[in-house]
Amino acid sequence: MKKAAIIMGSHSDMPIIEPAAAMLKRLDIPFEWKIMSAHRTPERAAKFAREAREKGFGVIIAAAGKAAHLAGAMAANTTLPIVGIPLKTGALDGLDALLSTVQMPSGVPVAAMAIDGATNAALFAAQILAVEDRALAKKLDEMRAEMADEVIKKDKELARRLAAPVKV
Amino acid sequence: MKKAAIIMGSHSDMPIIEPAAAMLKRLDIPFEWKIMSAHRTPERAAKFAREAREKGFGVIIAAAGKAAHLAGAMAANTTLPIVGIPLKTGALDGLDALLSTVQMPSGVPVAAMAIDGATNAALFAAQILAVEDRALAKKLDEMRAEMADEVIKKDKELARRLAAPVKV
Amino acid sequence: MKKAAIIMGSHSDMPIIEPAAAMLKRLDIPFEWKIMSAHRTPERAAKFAREAREKGFGVIIAAAGKAAHLAGAMAANTTLPIVGIPLKTGALDGLDALLSTVQMPSGVPVAAMAIDGATNAALFAAQILAVEDRALAKKLDEMRAEMADEVIKKDKELARRLAAPVKV
Amino acid sequence: MKKAAIIMGSHSDMPIIEPAAAMLKRLDIPFEWKIMSAHRTPERAAKFAREAREKGFGVIIAAAGKAAHLAGAMAANTTLPIVGIPLKTGALDGLDALLSTVQMPSGVPVAAMAIDGATNAALFAAQILAVEDRALAKKLDEMRAEMADEVIKKDKELARRLAAPVKV
Amino acid sequence: MKKAAIIMGSHSDMPIIEPAAAMLKRLDIPFEWKIMSAHRTPERAAKFAREAREKGFGVIIAAAGKAAHLAGAMAANTTLPIVGIPLKTGALDGLDALLSTVQMPSGVPVAAMAIDGATNAALFAAQILAVEDRALAKKLDEMRAEMADEVIKKDKELARRLAAPVKV
Amino acid sequence: MKKAAIIMGSHSDMPIIEPAAAMLKRLDIPFEWKIMSAHRTPERAAKFAREAREKGFGVIIAAAGKAAHLAGAMAANTTLPIVGIPLKTGALDGLDALLSTVQMPSGVPVAAMAIDGATNAALFAAQILAVEDRALAKKLDEMRAEMADEVIKKDKELARRLAAPVKV
Amino acid sequence: MKKAAIIMGSHSDMPIIEPAAAMLKRLDIPFEWKIMSAHRTPERAAKFAREAREKGFGVIIAAAGKAAHLAGAMAANTTLPIVGIPLKTGALDGLDALLSTVQMPSGVPVAAMAIDGATNAALFAAQILAVEDRALAKKLDEMRAEMADEVIKKDKELARRLAAPVKV
Amino acid sequence: MKKAAIIMGSHSDMPIIEPAAAMLKRLDIPFEWKIMSAHRTPERAAKFAREAREKGFGVIIAAAGKAAHLAGAMAANTTLPIVGIPLKTGALDGLDALLSTVQMPSGVPVAAMAIDGATNAALFAAQILAVEDRALAKKLDEMRAEMADEVIKKDKELARRLAAPVKV
Repeated sequence: MKKAAIIMGSHSDMPIIEPAAAMLKRLDIPFEWKIMSAHRTPERAAKFAREAREKGFGVIIAAAGKAAHLAGAMAANTTLPIVGIPLKTGALDGLDALLSTVQMPSGVPVAAMAIDGATNAALFAAQILAVEDRALAKKLDEMRAEMADEVIKKDKELARRLAAPVKV
Repeated sequence: MKKAAIIMGSHSDMPIIEPAAAMLKRLDIPFEWKIMSAHRTPERAAKFAREAREKGFGVIIAAAGKAAHLAGAMAANTTLPIVGIPLKTGALDGLDALLSTVQMPSGVPVAAMAIDGATNAALFAAQILAVEDRALAKKLDEMRAEMADEVIKKDKELARRLAAPVKV
Repeated sequence: MKKAAIIMGSHSDMPIIEPAAAMLKRLDIPFEWKIMSAHRTPERAAKFAREAREKGFGVIIAAAGKAAHLAGAMAANTTLPIVGIPLKTGALDGLDALLSTVQMPSGVPVAAMAIDGATNAALFAAQILAVEDRALAKKLDEMRAEMADEVIKKDKELARRLAAPVKV
Repeated sequence: MKKAAIIMGSHSDMPIIEPAAAMLKRLDIPFEWKIMSAHRTPERAAKFAREAREKGFGVIIAAAGKAAHLAGAMAANTTLPIVGIPLKTGALDGLDALLSTVQMPSGVPVAAMAIDGATNAALFAAQILAVEDRALAKKLDEMRAEMADEVIKKDKELARRLAAPVKV
Repeated sequence: MKKAAIIMGSHSDMPIIEPAAAMLKRLDIPFEWKIMSAHRTPERAAKFAREAREKGFGVIIAAAGKAAHLAGAMAANTTLPIVGIPLKTGALDGLDALLSTVQMPSGVPVAAMAIDGATNAALFAAQILAVEDRALAKKLDEMRAEMADEVIKKDKELARRLAAPVKV
Repeated sequence: MKKAAIIMGSHSDMPIIEPAAAMLKRLDIPFEWKIMSAHRTPERAAKFAREAREKGFGVIIAAAGKAAHLAGAMAANTTLPIVGIPLKTGALDGLDALLSTVQMPSGVPVAAMAIDGATNAALFAAQILAVEDRALAKKLDEMRAEMADEVIKKDKELARRLAAPVKV
Repeated sequence: MKKAAIIMGSHSDMPIIEPAAAMLKRLDIPFEWKIMSAHRTPERAAKFAREAREKGFGVIIAAAGKAAHLAGAMAANTTLPIVGIPLKTGALDGLDALLSTVQMPSGVPVAAMAIDGATNAALFAAQILAVEDRALAKKLDEMRAEMADEVIKKDKELARRLAAPVKV
Repeated sequence: MKKAAIIMGSHSDMPIIEPAAAMLKRLDIPFEWKIMSAHRTPERAAKFAREAREKGFGVIIAAAGKAAHLAGAMAANTTLPIVGIPLKTGALDGLDALLSTVQMPSGVPVAAMAIDGATNAALFAAQILAVEDRALAKKLDEMRAEMADEVIKKDKELARRLAAPVKV
């Protein structure tokens, strides 16, 4: 299987990014994670992206906040699919990172996830790898079914609760 | 090769969506395009998504405006990768469609492109299909190189122009 | 009397939604509440909406956050009135859920309440049911009168307070 | 059948509001339309709302732009369901009217439609009146079916078009 | 001297509004403060505004949050100057109240202050009353001078501090 | 009677500002209008504000776009009431000018009108001058009554129109 | 004198950028202009920035729209001052480009100008070069004085116009 | 070397501004810091700007929140480069200060930094002074290299961590 990469712009992004790594582990998808910054280590970031396909990566997840250029900088240097996670930091509630990630110019796409959407970034990376991997696709379908069962279970608990008085 | 699907919420979205189809053609990626609405034909849309993998689709592009639920409705019914194009319509300059497309809940990702970003949606779909298709990846790399050459050519024209007087 | 339904997208929305249930109880309006997700259990959600009128429901309240598709997904499957509560979650202060709920396309309306406006959703559902129910309309008018009296009482307390020195 | 009212804040709103009237006519719902302003004729507006239920109205549609208080001013004076249409005017692309309409305080709900969503306001008013009117509910369901058929028809036309070359 | 009025939409706004009362006291401007709601006690609010000039008021301060109609409802019922304070509540950081207060239609102005700007509302009310009251104008000018002196004093303290090492 | 001043930041603002002058003329309020810029002629602007009260001005209207500092610069140099008109220019639909005008710091208020709200600025200036001028107050009340009559007249025309068929 | 560089992301940005070149010419500041894209020619852009100081550049102006990474990509590769011009394109009125340009992470600053603010970018570049160049500083001061004179001239024309009747 | 100035609008801004002073110290750039307000001490602020070049300043950093006019007021009175720091205060998450700082009219530029971007303001001021100061430019380049090394060090730590189990 092709590997996934998780790139974050700063060490301080770890608490938000960790669920992405956890999800890839859960799905047995081989991955590497790296700290590389579009602004602080631009050459390293560009080099990683340029060589990623040859090194066996199939998808790159890139997470950054504020003027979030990391995903775009990756996308500029490879035609592998890039999945961008806009991070909510300091001000503006993540709107800056969302627009910096999603509004890419024609010719160089980035796939934006929700603000702080690390789990979904991993899932989407898995969905990409599953296009030609029936076993992985099956795992993803099973996970969806579990997720649905969990909702249904909660729904049944709620139904029982209605008999009890509701707080006004 | 797996097929791509282009789904649009309304016939009136055609002028924005057409470049996506053109790009898929240019890349020789087999595709179907359909008009299906999350709100007007919800069952047809859900059915299409549920059966898409079996029918040989590898990726689905979904374009919608306003409270743009189409990509999300697709994503809810398949684990194929869904690429969402938020469309700019009537009011709010596309911000409504962007947020409705990108802010998906944990567990059900959609890959959002820029507002009205049809060409990028097709390119991103191609990048997904190229993960296991060297020939397609090569085509994408060549297209990138052409794009760069075009910028360089324009840059050289501009350099020549500087000799001429600039309008004040 | 027709029943009301309260649908929430996730168990975690309960603290915000509970006042809606409390208000329906206070008004003696029969209701059911359910956890169903437009994205995690799309078929159950659609099925509920399709059958709701026949099962005696007169109005459906749907609450969801982020790319809040739940109310829209309900509206796509029934012509019963749908009352949407956009929930404030994680980022963007509820603007994402508000736009995803209110900006519905022509033909499939959703009635959006204020962000986190659960009490108003229940009141509006009651106002719908009261159109043909004089007794319920009377209850609603009495509740309004009580609300006004409460404001007037607070106003009088404040008037008394003015004699006392104001903190600078 | 109860009547519907369409209230607009200014004569100049007519081109946006007219589709609401057309839809009510198409559904054979009796209605009156009026120009009343929360700011220019506040007493007339309040009086209309206070007397509306007694005069046989079942639902009030109120359309206004900018600091759109009309729907809220109606809601303050009746417990009939108020359907608000935020209008896009001059600046800010309708965001001002949307927030002024939807962010109602607890106790006095307004059902906000999309910006300039006149047709949906009429449909939602009809859905309210249809709660206790099977014939009207049936009409609404039929209209939905026609709408779906229209989408399907366009989808088939599109399928035929794919054979023809796509413009690059 | 004409009196000022401070109207707030809810008892819970008191902590934000109290500085307005304190400033009026400091300037020896006679005032009354009241709780009246555009939505919960619309007739009382309208009546107050209609009678305010005759009762000796020269200016009305109105504070409200969310779909903040209170200042506009006052303005609709008198030609006395209305000073609006948009309050930050629950969601959207006060943007809803700001737009609902400031975007008044032509013919019925409201003077919007900054979000939660209670002190400035009182100062602006004082500035209005000072147009024909030299003594009050002098007080306002003196307060400005004190304010400037306070800044200059802090500036001098800061200058002394620069000798000390700055934390890196 | 005290005079009003209309200050605009640029000659190009005239088409938006002219209705303010027209309204002051209609109300027989003496006024001067000037072009002065907080950024291009800062000393002249400050000097005007500092001397305005002595020169017989009772209120200053200041209109500017983008980072609209003109009203604030006036307010910094006088305790006369300043009425700010945020102008919609180039980008961001006037939101930049609105926030730059209204979000004044504690101690130095500006009364913000709606974006491009020149007529209301003149009306609000008149309302300020009318606090101690019964004749002017009466004129303002009469103008309001005319405005209401105009709405009522349009409402009656509309009522007649309903008999005619509505366009679908 | 050090040279200035004007870098634009696309040939289509020329109409907005040309005034920057014109201003540099007017100030006799030597400059080069180039088309280089952070996303389409990332290596060329990085190389230019890395070598710019050695090649005699003293300041770089970079203009881009949407997810405007160009200024940031320049800043990542040099410690020369970078002046960013966010361009208004397609959707969101330039807010995307503004946030992508200005919200740079700690350590790698970009100086953001107003949206489409090409003239100011050239002026700011000149102000940087003038820090150690008295003659250029004098030119800038003279230009400011001319600008002020122009405002004063327009102000005098306006004063004359007041005698004439104002359009109501 | 020319001096830098740090101007803040209020004593309470110190915690945000202090890193700017610390950075200037670290780079051995002589500086003064002052509290001056565009609204509370407008003449002092204007005087400081007018005399700054003669007093040996080469660049001015100005920090303010809300309707942040301080940087613009500085820029109006000098052609020295002004670096503006928009501060996040009370409401709207700093968007008000950002737009008030960056959207300057043509002819009077301000260089806007990120919201609360004090460190970058100092770095950018240093970059301006370094244009003609090779030693300072070298220091800035070294600091960049250290910053990159820090990222690389963190990246290596992270690589080691991957062997350990990731929390799910």
